[in-house]
Amino acid sequence: MYDLTLIGIGTGNPDHLTLQAIKAINAADLILIPRKGEGKADLAELRHAICRDVLTNPATRIAGFDLPVRDETIADYRARVDAWHDAIAAVWADAIAAQPDARHVALLVWGDPALYDSTLRIASRLTPAPQIKVIPGITSIHALTSAHAIVLNEIGAPYIVTTGRRLRDEGWPAAADTVVVMLDGECSFQSLDPKGVQIWWGAYVGMPEEITLAGPLAEVAAKIVALRAAARERHGWIMDIYLMRRAG
Amino acid sequence: MYDLTLIGIGTGNPDHLTLQAIKAINAADLILIPRKGEGKADLAELRHAICRDVLTNPATRIAGFDLPVRDETIADYRARVDAWHDAIAAVWADAIAAQPDARHVALLVWGDPALYDSTLRIASRLTPAPQIKVIPGITSIHALTSAHAIVLNEIGAPYIVTTGRRLRDEGWPAAADTVVVMLDGECSFQSLDPKGVQIWWGAYVGMPEEITLAGPLAEVAAKIVALRAAARERHGWIMDIYLMRRAG
Repeated sequence: MYDLTLIGIGTGNPDHLTLQAIKAINAADLILIPRKGEGKADLAELRHAICRDVLTNPATRIAGFDLPVRDETIADYRARVDAWHDAIAAVWADAIAAQPDARHVALLVWGDPALYDSTLRIASRLTPAPQIKVIPGITSIHALTSAHAIVLNEIGAPYIVTTGRRLRDEGWPAAADTVVVMLDGECSFQSLDPKGVQIWWGAYVGMPEEITLAGPLAEVAAKIVALRAAARERHGWIMDIYLMRRAG
Repeated sequence: MYDLTLIGIGTGNPDHLTLQAIKAINAADLILIPRKGEGKADLAELRHAICRDVLTNPATRIAGFDLPVRDETIADYRARVDAWHDAIAAVWADAIAAQPDARHVALLVWGDPALYDSTLRIASRLTPAPQIKVIPGITSIHALTSAHAIVLNEIGAPYIVTTGRRLRDEGWPAAADTVVVMLDGECSFQSLDPKGVQIWWGAYVGMPEEITLAGPLAEVAAKIVALRAAARERHGWIMDIYLMRRAG
């Protein structure tokens, strides 16, 4: 039997690693790293670079695994994702079974394992269920607010974190004047009435490629769309996030 | 002229420090640490312990400063806080002026500087305005989700972060089925209809004193109230946070 540690590694800056994460990496007998399938070579390579940088325990082994592809013949989105998560869990189980003396297994998770990440959900499919430990990581939300040197919340006020799809489908959420938008491939801020809205946008936040833009949404929306498209073209991939605030 | 770096240090676990934070601490000529006034001896001492642990630059000086007290004769809450922030900025300015050769000044900020923290707002009062840099830190939100090994958001769904006061005054926020509550001295979850609500609560999250409790709100609310009161009595202070999820 083994335990499984999900280690938050931050958003692509190796210096986002915490001392706790470094200790957890070195406490692992086995670290599972996706070999391919992410479609973002920089991210897969980053995990290896992190291990090269901080791994000092000669007994720790690194095992690559191939991420399964989603079965596009399954029409229902949720069912397709469920089947994909089942398949990933099976791949992990095989990789772990191949190292039967590994008592402490670890996965390196982009950002923080609790934030719009599937690792915990996939891990819950393992049988028998290993004990799961989570090491918190720097999130893209705080990489964004740090890049802009801004506060997330107004004094005593709430903020909401949502997705691009939700913003497009439902508009500005009723409950808060500050909104953080993640998982947005379509610059969904364009669906809003920009009057009175400020935006702080960033891509590759925390990484050497980091780019940011901020200002009144009415003035900068088109610039962000263009900048994002150019950056995506140049790098072959993009991850971006933004915070918007409207007058209360 | 100097620049000012606000360094997120996480939630009281020295191992929450990132490599970036450690580099920033060692790049500082001057680190300002509150001498007293926080009312939580553990937290003031933690900053000194962190410097002892990770500071290797012999040129870095540490300067204590006395946090001003709030002027309780100012009736309006916002005006009272504004005056207090002005007073803190003046104390910082004096401490920095006393070290005229310091080019890089740093402050160690609990959690992350963007999350329910006043440091950025106080720093914006400094004149002339120094360049401000922010180093992200592990937040109490992710110390909580890590302690419980839970995800923050449901798949593709939003979550809202709010305060105890808002929860009491406004009830469950309309926009999300997941709510994180911070700054709650009054166990405001008691004001809700607990039907169908799960809660994951934690105090001193990330610290050796960490305590957690989770379950259906109807079953554990009274236990949390009792556990919180006993812990506060034992330690002389408490910081807690919780996440609640209701059936969507």
